[in-house]
Amino acid sequence: MTKNILLTISYDGSGFHGWQKQPGQKTVQGYLEETFSRLFNREILLSGTSRTDAGVHAFAQRASFKTDISIPVERLAMVMNNALCGREKTSFGLSPVRIVDAVEMPDDFHARFSCKGKEYIYKIKAGGPDADSVFNRNYLYYVKGSLDVDKMDEAAKKLVGRKDFKSFEASGGNPRETTVREIFEAGVTGKEDGIIEFHVSGDGFLYNMVRIMTGTLVEIGRGKYEPEYIETITEACDRRLAGHTAPPFGLYLAKVFY
Amino acid sequence: MTKNILLTISYDGSGFHGWQKQPGQKTVQGYLEETFSRLFNREILLSGTSRTDAGVHAFAQRASFKTDISIPVERLAMVMNNALCGREKTSFGLSPVRIVDAVEMPDDFHARFSCKGKEYIYKIKAGGPDADSVFNRNYLYYVKGSLDVDKMDEAAKKLVGRKDFKSFEASGGNPRETTVREIFEAGVTGKEDGIIEFHVSGDGFLYNMVRIMTGTLVEIGRGKYEPEYIETITEACDRRLAGHTAPPFGLYLAKVFY
Repeated sequence: MTKNILLTISYDGSGFHGWQKQPGQKTVQGYLEETFSRLFNREILLSGTSRTDAGVHAFAQRASFKTDISIPVERLAMVMNNALCGREKTSFGLSPVRIVDAVEMPDDFHARFSCKGKEYIYKIKAGGPDADSVFNRNYLYYVKGSLDVDKMDEAAKKLVGRKDFKSFEASGGNPRETTVREIFEAGVTGKEDGIIEFHVSGDGFLYNMVRIMTGTLVEIGRGKYEPEYIETITEACDRRLAGHTAPPFGLYLAKVFY
Repeated sequence: MTKNILLTISYDGSGFHGWQKQPGQKTVQGYLEETFSRLFNREILLSGTSRTDAGVHAFAQRASFKTDISIPVERLAMVMNNALCGREKTSFGLSPVRIVDAVEMPDDFHARFSCKGKEYIYKIKAGGPDADSVFNRNYLYYVKGSLDVDKMDEAAKKLVGRKDFKSFEASGGNPRETTVREIFEAGVTGKEDGIIEFHVSGDGFLYNMVRIMTGTLVEIGRGKYEPEYIETITEACDRRLAGHTAPPFGLYLAKVFY
């Protein structure tokens, strides 16, 4: 009997050319499909929720697949993790990709088409590289100088709502019907360890949207623009008004809503 | 005029075959000497304090070198970091190795022979791999089950003193006159983020000594032995009595004393 299985997946994106399978590139989807197809001795094809870019991480990517494997779904994450760890010769067998959870879903569920929204977190460290940046260079965006977190938070909150976010879209994305999206929540907070986090959730995101929002917030944090400038950028529907595209390494897919 | 310069260096050891230069291997010493020799257009040969193993990290490795370069020593770290970052095509130019500091020393100073002691930190996470382990797999030792931190700390304190540490030495190290070393301080503490840290300082360390001490403390934390067993192991001068060798990835060279 065919089951429809939904996986929750965390990964360190720094060694991957993004989620989506591409010939000749190491991608998360390719790595998982290869491992699981060999493990279950049949073709496993995953539908992922978000096509994260090269270098982007995930706390909780989702992917669904249909299969007739007989193994109980409660044991699936463990069996898959053992197979993933077995591929890694270094790191004492810990894999850059981990199956956090596996559950069975109704037949008509699809990880991408059933998705109601996503939350991303972008992690920034102000003050430029330091002794610790050797360990965090693939996980944080090191920004020189200081950032005004309150102004960044004020600006982030102005992103909330149903709007045309064309100004925050990079060229080169997939075709889309509209550039209108709804941002549910957005905010910037300073953490105790000096890391500044931008949290943003919405019903969908345009190509590089979170990274362009982050670059714009960084420029506001530096005092280049006032928080109100977010409204000017958004209304203009012109990418040239927004800030730079922040690098992929600080970005994490944090949650998927169904 | 020849200057004698001392560098403080932090590095992510996960991509390196240790500190010491070896033909055909990517090592920290080799990477730095290559970069600096090209930068200053003359041969730069570094004397490092500690030959860290493959995968071992450093917050503050030290290395000295003699040179007739004319650049002011206050500008040296910046110039070197620019050259190191310039080599990296990925990570948006942040290097896995960073010069934290550069100072001029008296002519008879030598980073290794003038060293009076070192401090290491070993980082452990109990409970086995989780969603976050994809990010920390090269930086923490993931141990399954729970650990009794108080018992580990009690055991660690029994390592302190001037003793023959032959039981905590792996074979295959460099020739040494004696296996007697002095441990100045040792302790195990649980941090808020769930990370357990073993701190140990001493006048010198035998081959794999900190990693074997860590493996032994982990076995005590699991309840396999009582803290007093540390004394039995030490007195026996027999490697077979001590615990397993913990993996290199949790180990950090934290301080060098002069």
